[in-house]
Formats: sequence, structure tokens, C-alpha cells
Amino acid sequence: MPTYKMLLQYDGSRYRGWQRLGDSDMTVQGKLEAALSRLFGVAVEISGSGRTDAGVHARGQTASFTTVRDLPPEALLHDLRRCLPEDIGVLSIDYAPPRFHARYSALEKTYCYRVWNSEAPCVFDRRFVYVFPDPLDLDRMRQAAERLLGEHDFRGFSAGRTKKSTVRTLSRLCVDRVGEEVRFTLTADGFLQQMVRILVGTLLEIGRGERAAESIDEVFRTGVRAGAGFTVPAKGLCLTEVRYG
Amino acid sequence: MPTYKMLLQYDGSRYRGWQRLGDSDMTVQGKLEAALSRLFGVAVEISGSGRTDAGVHARGQTASFTTVRDLPPEALLHDLRRCLPEDIGVLSIDYAPPRFHARYSALEKTYCYRVWNSEAPCVFDRRFVYVFPDPLDLDRMRQAAERLLGEHDFRGFSAGRTKKSTVRTLSRLCVDRVGEEVRFTLTADGFLQQMVRILVGTLLEIGRGERAAESIDEVFRTGVRAGAGFTVPAKGLCLTEVRYG
Repeated sequence: MPTYKMLLQYDGSRYRGWQRLGDSDMTVQGKLEAALSRLFGVAVEISGSGRTDAGVHARGQTASFTTVRDLPPEALLHDLRRCLPEDIGVLSIDYAPPRFHARYSALEKTYCYRVWNSEAPCVFDRRFVYVFPDPLDLDRMRQAAERLLGEHDFRGFSAGRTKKSTVRTLSRLCVDRVGEEVRFTLTADGFLQQMVRILVGTLLEIGRGERAAESIDEVFRTGVRAGAGFTVPAKGLCLTEVRYG
Repeated sequence: MPTYKMLLQYDGSRYRGWQRLGDSDMTVQGKLEAALSRLFGVAVEISGSGRTDAGVHARGQTASFTTVRDLPPEALLHDLRRCLPEDIGVLSIDYAPPRFHARYSALEKTYCYRVWNSEAPCVFDRRFVYVFPDPLDLDRMRQAAERLLGEHDFRGFSAGRTKKSTVRTLSRLCVDRVGEEVRFTLTADGFLQQMVRILVGTLLEIGRGERAAESIDEVFRTGVRAGAGFTVPAKGLCLTEVRYG
């Protein structure tokens, strides 16, 4: 019963997200499982490091699966690439220790959010950026980002409800200008539903000068979603790295 | 009667090329003329620096037009951007001297051809590269490129027939590896139909070791298209710059 670990890329534009929803569905997990099940000749179920939402992209998603048959990783990689649509790419497949699980073994995840902060056209990357041309004060956003770093209850910066802990540790939040773009890079031990998109939306409101950085402390205190900023669109978001021990 | 000069970008994937083919057609010129005619309230005809083929992209196409009405370039730029589909972008609009003509005034054009030279997936740039994973000898291609430089009759490296001169001066042909990509950059005083794509196809055959560099001299001597290499697909090609005096 070998366990495999896969490193994946995908353009999430036409998918309903990572998580399989039913038979023959338009999800990344569904496409990968269909291809793997065909190659192994038995049903294969995979676990992703996390469930990216509809329209979210990945450059470094990780998934794991255990099968009854043993196929050499190199041959499997070659065959799997031929079975997948061109918007899902497998970077590597390797054997993993039997207890490895893409989700439970993950120590840290990094997401990148790309904002096209210009009136200039963005023709070639238009599927991967959120166009937001208003002037932004980067220093203001960076100062606000300091308040978000560390261990906090991020309930107010998430969508949906959960009975599980909403405490997470945000270890990195960089705001960089790259040409016409403003890029947000966030690393944490885990992210709640839509957490990156709500954090970025909140920072954009701060960067545009319509929200005070202090409002962040209030959202932490009350845990009320309505106190935070808007949810930026999925298309600008990309899961770039999942770190394991 | 002001004359305007526009700098343009487009993702050519869904277009039938630059040149207008009829009313309400899927061409870049057609889309731009429809938008400009609406803004000026009279029919506007534009001239591109050259006719890019179906599926070819541009980062620096230039077009010119003369109108009976005078609209300030800055306002025109702003309004035009709002009328265009998101795969056509206007970088700038300026007044030009009355005798300026995007095609006749052009001194030099530069094209870039992107080859994805790897078995690895190419998810995010897949619309803009030609996937050709066979091993390539870059030194061999660079040596062959030397034979192409300078003034030659490129008839054998072009599609279609013409009674006009097929002599062109190729001033630059660089072959560079950039990560998984091999990039060809070509500059000339003009290019014949499909000339860049046939030159790149010929160089790929040389780089894969199935064609001798000397065959280039033979194609120059005979002018026979069949003696040159295959035509690489349009999707990898991009008009990057047009130089004016």
C-alpha cells in the first residue's frame, strides 16, 4: 500500500474549486482522482493540503494518496501528465512515508494575492490579478499588517461558521510593489475560509485611506465578520507553497 | 484633422488576426475601429504597423489613424479603455505628426517566440508558448542563426507569394534559455508572411539535430519554401516592439 505525494499547479479559472462535489464534476480534486483511478484501475481518493475555493489558483498545492497497487512514481508522473487537462499540471510525484497526509502533515502554507494597481491595461495576466487602480499607501498597509502578525483569533476575518478553533498564527505578511502590481504574501500555520481574501480586502481599504488600522484590533476583539473589509475576488489568489517537516 | 499614434497590447488567442475581415468580425483591427468609431461618432480606420496572423499576440503593436474630429489623447485613452475587451489593451495614445503612418514609418520590428522546452507542465503561460520538449542544442542554433543575419532574400522562409521584394535585413536573432523556456528574439526592417515562425521552426530542427545549418544557405539560394523547416504555431509568437525614427 504505497503512499504518494504530488506537487501540483493549476489555473483555477474554470474550476469550482479543489474539493470534489460529485461525479464528473469541474473540480481539481475530481479531475485528478478520475485520471489516477483510470491509471491504477481502482478508485483512488486524494487529499489536498487544503481546499482552494472556486477560481483560486495554485503553484504549489500538495496532495497525497494511498493505493493498493504500486506504480513507479516516474512512470506515473509521465502517464498522469498525459491524462490531465492543460490547466492542471503535476510538478512531481514521489513515494511518501506511510503516515504522510497532505493536510494533517502540513506545517505552514503560503498564499500570494496579486492586485493590478494601475489604469494601464493588464492583458496577459488578466486571469490572475484583481484590477484595483485606486492609489494605495503601501506604508500604511505595511504598518497595519504588523497588527495582523502573530497568534490571533481570526474568526472575524473568515467566512462561514465553525465550532473548531479559529486561532491561527500568521508568521508573514509582506506587501510589495512589483511594476504595476501590488503583491501580498501571507504565511500561516493554516488559513480559515476566505481568510486571505478578507485580510487583503481589509488592507486595501486601509491603503486607500477609508479605514483605520485600529479597526483590526476591534475585529480581533469582537470576532464579527462585518467589522472587517470586503472579500477580494478569487482570481487574484494563488496557493504558492505548503511546507512539511 | 489630427493624426494619432497608439501603442497596443493584445492576447491574440481568440482573434482571427489583426486585419479587419468584414463587419462585426473577430479581428483586433475590427474591435479597435468599432470602439474608435463609436467614440468619434464617425467611421475611423486605423493602420497597424503590420498584420499579425490569427493567434499571434502583441506587447508593442503600433497603430495610427487620422480623424475629422479632435479629441484630447488623454480623454480618448480613458474612454477607449472602457470600450475594449479585456484581451486588447491600449498602453498610450498621442498626437503624431500629420505624415506619420504606423506601417510606412516603421523602421524596425521585433518579435519574440517562446518555446516551452520541458516535460514539466506549463499551466499559467500555456496560451503564450509552444510546447516542444525535445532536447535542443542552443549553441548549434546560435551558430545557425549567424547565417540568417544580414540582408538576404527570405522568400524561401515565407508563406504565400508576392511580386514585391522579399529581401529583408535581419539585424538580430538571439536564442536564450530562460528557465524552462527557449526564447527567440528577432529584429528586422520588416518580416514576410510567417517568416518568424518558419525561421524558428527551421532553427528547432537544427537544434534537435535533424537538419544541417548549411541547409539555410540552400534555402536562400533556391528560394523554395519546402527546403526550410516547419511553421511553428502562432500562439508562441508576440510582436514586442516597433521602432520609428
